[in-house]
Amino acid sequence: MAGETVITVVGNLVDDPELRFTPSGAAVAKFRIASTPRTFDRQTNEWKDGESLFLTCAVWRQAAENVAESLTRGTRVIVQGRLKQRSYEDREGVKRTVYELDVEEVGVSLKNATAKVTRTGGQRPAATPAGRPMADDQWATEPPF
Amino acid sequence: MAGETVITVVGNLVDDPELRFTPSGAAVAKFRIASTPRTFDRQTNEWKDGESLFLTCAVWRQAAENVAESLTRGTRVIVQGRLKQRSYEDREGVKRTVYELDVEEVGVSLKNATAKVTRTGGQRPAATPAGRPMADDQWATEPPF
Amino acid sequence: MAGETVITVVGNLVDDPELRFTPSGAAVAKFRIASTPRTFDRQTNEWKDGESLFLTCAVWRQAAENVAESLTRGTRVIVQGRLKQRSYEDREGVKRTVYELDVEEVGVSLKNATAKVTRTGGQRPAATPAGRPMADDQWATEPPF
Amino acid sequence: MAGETVITVVGNLVDDPELRFTPSGAAVAKFRIASTPRTFDRQTNEWKDGESLFLTCAVWRQAAENVAESLTRGTRVIVQGRLKQRSYEDREGVKRTVYELDVEEVGVSLKNATAKVTRTGGQRPAATPAGRPMADDQWATEPPF
Repeated sequence: MAGETVITVVGNLVDDPELRFTPSGAAVAKFRIASTPRTFDRQTNEWKDGESLFLTCAVWRQAAENVAESLTRGTRVIVQGRLKQRSYEDREGVKRTVYELDVEEVGVSLKNATAKVTRTGGQRPAATPAGRPMADDQWATEPPF
Repeated sequence: MAGETVITVVGNLVDDPELRFTPSGAAVAKFRIASTPRTFDRQTNEWKDGESLFLTCAVWRQAAENVAESLTRGTRVIVQGRLKQRSYEDREGVKRTVYELDVEEVGVSLKNATAKVTRTGGQRPAATPAGRPMADDQWATEPPF
Repeated sequence: MAGETVITVVGNLVDDPELRFTPSGAAVAKFRIASTPRTFDRQTNEWKDGESLFLTCAVWRQAAENVAESLTRGTRVIVQGRLKQRSYEDREGVKRTVYELDVEEVGVSLKNATAKVTRTGGQRPAATPAGRPMADDQWATEPPF
Repeated sequence: MAGETVITVVGNLVDDPELRFTPSGAAVAKFRIASTPRTFDRQTNEWKDGESLFLTCAVWRQAAENVAESLTRGTRVIVQGRLKQRSYEDREGVKRTVYELDVEEVGVSLKNATAKVTRTGGQRPAATPAGRPMADDQWATEPPF
């Protein structure tokens, strides 16, 4: 792939991640994050929250299982992935567009937390990068949960 | 600050992080990461490592203590920060330039590891972002260790 | 502002940009871009277009006027800005969410084009960064056009 | 390639770009940019320049010719590319490391300038992305000029 829009977002999980497996056995985890900018108010001398940006993130394979085991609602994460847009019709037949992040890399932020790290087996997945559904995996193109 | 060059780098720690404290008591941790791209060789059907990019990272305050407690040599991290350049003369009087990352956010990658997360006290210091040395902290402008 | 999600997108203008002025006289230009990734098909030995990502971009002040004068439908641009999310109800009362880019910097891509560059007067307005609406400018928070 | 460090830098050309051709006829342009952050001084009510970040950029093929024709010393650009590190010995035998940007996309900033855009032939290069030297091009791995 060339010309993808790779972005980095820092935010907090809105809920616990959801882990599923495709018919072919591949793990995929989805989680939603809220990224909230802050402005410094010189009059009150305090930081104020701005409007949050919400993004749904999908992560595949070993990383998906690690996400499900490590993250919970509220955890602050730093996520890098490809920004994707998907259009669909909802139950009322209204056309909607959602933006999602195909996660390439997700990390537990150390800004307000410590982490006890344990390596999982398998250094390097073979020819399929973490964020990409496998070609034979029809489920990958279905609507998200 | 406006117009800073904020970048995201994924890599592995080359050594354990080093934690220090400034005379005024602020914690700062430095660590060096290697980021290694890979190409897929269609003939051997294997991934091959490309040339590594090495970067020294500096992180301040609570995050510095969390880094020192959580990361060790080899840990894979995802780091976001401001790319800075600094020129100095080495012991032989040769002028040298180094690039460093003023870390805004550092996370433990979940690609090949799980993390047991523990929140540390204190949301965030008020007006001083995590990556920035405090103004009264002379040590901040000294050469790096 | 701290903690904003700054991203870079490369794409082509879907239409000519629209230039407006706020009641207080500030220029704002809006334009929509399509960013299309490509995959290389080893069987046909050709690049194939993937699904496009569409984003509406807003740019302020002098840069807005420069955008209106320089860009037209089809122009390839590289845009850096803050990714924002905004919710509203459409005419049927359906709640919708849109993502927009508050442009910090926009450039004419030189991949497939040359550009004859002419400087415009005035370095930069003082304390107000290019992408930000001015505080006294009520229009800035109205729905987009 | 996977795992490359792709960054975006906004800066001004320090000199006119230099255009060369490899023995096999591929164009490559090199240019150096300075990216200068600014801080707002609340006491003087003025922006002050911070320390500049300097980076050498290399761009290939059609984009290289477009760069050479469009950019001059002082032009403000927005550049996206892969951050690379290269070590070599200088004439005195001192080992040095330089950081360079393999340009994927470069654009003329419209912050303080307008641009008259002219499309160049050839929509899309075939299988070789703009920033990458061609495999048969030995010159590509030689030291930079």
